[in-house]
Amino acid sequence: MTNQAIDVLGIGNAIVDVISQADDAFLQARSLTKGTMALIDAARAEELYALMGPGIEMSGGSAANTMAGLASLGGQGAFIGKVRNDQLGGIFRHDIRANGLTFDTPASTEGQPTARCLIFVTPDAQRTMNTFLGASVALGPEDLDAELIERAKITYLEGYLWDAPAAKEAFVQAARIAHKAGRRVALSLSDPFCVERHRESFLDLVEAHIDLLFANEVEICTLYGVHDFDAALQKVRGHCEVAVLTRSARGAVVLSGEEVHVVDAEPVAQVVDTTGAGDLYAAGFLFGYTRGKNLYDCGRIGAIASAEVISHFGARPEVSLAGLVEYRLGHT
Amino acid sequence: MTNQAIDVLGIGNAIVDVISQADDAFLQARSLTKGTMALIDAARAEELYALMGPGIEMSGGSAANTMAGLASLGGQGAFIGKVRNDQLGGIFRHDIRANGLTFDTPASTEGQPTARCLIFVTPDAQRTMNTFLGASVALGPEDLDAELIERAKITYLEGYLWDAPAAKEAFVQAARIAHKAGRRVALSLSDPFCVERHRESFLDLVEAHIDLLFANEVEICTLYGVHDFDAALQKVRGHCEVAVLTRSARGAVVLSGEEVHVVDAEPVAQVVDTTGAGDLYAAGFLFGYTRGKNLYDCGRIGAIASAEVISHFGARPEVSLAGLVEYRLGHT
Repeated sequence: MTNQAIDVLGIGNAIVDVISQADDAFLQARSLTKGTMALIDAARAEELYALMGPGIEMSGGSAANTMAGLASLGGQGAFIGKVRNDQLGGIFRHDIRANGLTFDTPASTEGQPTARCLIFVTPDAQRTMNTFLGASVALGPEDLDAELIERAKITYLEGYLWDAPAAKEAFVQAARIAHKAGRRVALSLSDPFCVERHRESFLDLVEAHIDLLFANEVEICTLYGVHDFDAALQKVRGHCEVAVLTRSARGAVVLSGEEVHVVDAEPVAQVVDTTGAGDLYAAGFLFGYTRGKNLYDCGRIGAIASAEVISHFGARPEVSLAGLVEYRLGHT
Repeated sequence: MTNQAIDVLGIGNAIVDVISQADDAFLQARSLTKGTMALIDAARAEELYALMGPGIEMSGGSAANTMAGLASLGGQGAFIGKVRNDQLGGIFRHDIRANGLTFDTPASTEGQPTARCLIFVTPDAQRTMNTFLGASVALGPEDLDAELIERAKITYLEGYLWDAPAAKEAFVQAARIAHKAGRRVALSLSDPFCVERHRESFLDLVEAHIDLLFANEVEICTLYGVHDFDAALQKVRGHCEVAVLTRSARGAVVLSGEEVHVVDAEPVAQVVDTTGAGDLYAAGFLFGYTRGKNLYDCGRIGAIASAEVISHFGARPEVSLAGLVEYRLGHT
């Protein structure tokens, strides 16, 4: 399938979530603060992983989740991200390929092991997360497959990677290759803290290289240093071809030139776990966009995909999003 | 104060709300369906009014409520509406003047009595409403005070009156006078059923005479015959200078040419009675607009005024909106 058309190519962290049960005493003995997310180093990751009871491994990572959503919608996707040639790296590669996605980034054979997020679930259903970025942030320009980028209608960049200098360089280079081939480049701002750390350079990136920008309310306000959503909305207009601003239960606003759409959130019987909400919104939107849907319908597909993923644990869809979207769009 | 500047002149129904308590047996004996609003004729109004226990009379009417809100915000307002020279007509005139508003429309000396809305509140806090439009719908072009219209920055029309042929003629004439004087004309769609009855002529009215349009989500969707808010939003753009679309707890969207603002609803500790929400939103918006505020701030003032009126019974503010707005805008 070397020359097949690709709808979206995601570039992001290649992370495996490892989930196991633990009790409060376990957390205390390892100085873990219940309910929080901490960045950890390699030694700590190995130590905690060795101590974990039997668990489940689920591939994660923001852009990778988006690609899994795209595949579930029936889109053709590919992923570039860095794993190590170790067991978790093998799991990540297996999962993403099992979704029908192209993933050929060579695993590193030295340096940090594959990124993981070790999640301890206590009996009160709280999740204590420990993220080790590992091999993921070793991604550099040398990992870019120019031919893949040229084939993809959209190259989608995960903001989290902006913390790593080599990955940053890879982003800019990927954007240049895509634009030279007449393709589009999208960016997800990923996280308000990440935006805060790199405000100026994100603004430059958006201005110079981004056609489609995905951000939630806090992220877009942080990017422009304003305190209310409407002010951010005014700032972003005209700075990229399409801006998709998500607001959780308040739905989303999609801007493109003079065009503005207000897209309501899809009803959800019970919100179980909001992890992956933004990733799947982007998946739905990008799927619609690459299929030539109008911007409102792109937003609706995003909302439907997002509603599915927050109604259960985990950041990847549990049902065929293609069927779900067909049903929902057909019944409104 | 004959030549003083006027911010907004409202033209609408002059209605007095008469509220008293009743029990279920009373409702049943009079064939009243609890929780509904019914239009009633003169005979029925007299009959029910005679049967009412001791109650409270509060002036109402959609545009009149808006004018009361405007006055509470510190704006200069006037009202044109038709009462009869009877007791309720006297109450309406007293109340609206006591708010500091100009109201000089002569009372009719014959024909139907003053409009009233007879409201029975049952012990379960439900309100059963019976509206008799009476003298209100006798408003005609002869009741227009051209000099008053010329002095008002904005003439604000209440859609409810579009049911009455003479009032309809008065609307168009008022719009012509206002525009000839270089003033603005605003319209509130008031009610989805009213819009449904007069869709085509409302569309013509908006196209030909309206600069500022106020509508809630159901009304704007009804006007354009579409099923979702975003579709209505696309339709209304470019058809009036400013469109203010309210969505209850979802806030409002303000459109003006290429300008678009998303204004969130103000938080309310407890929603007690939503009557007057749209009227007071318009009050706040128009106040801001006539004071040269930007469209986002106009929407914010509308949201603050609206939040106040839904936090208690009755459709007119219970506190000084001027003070409330100063406090709220200063603390966000």
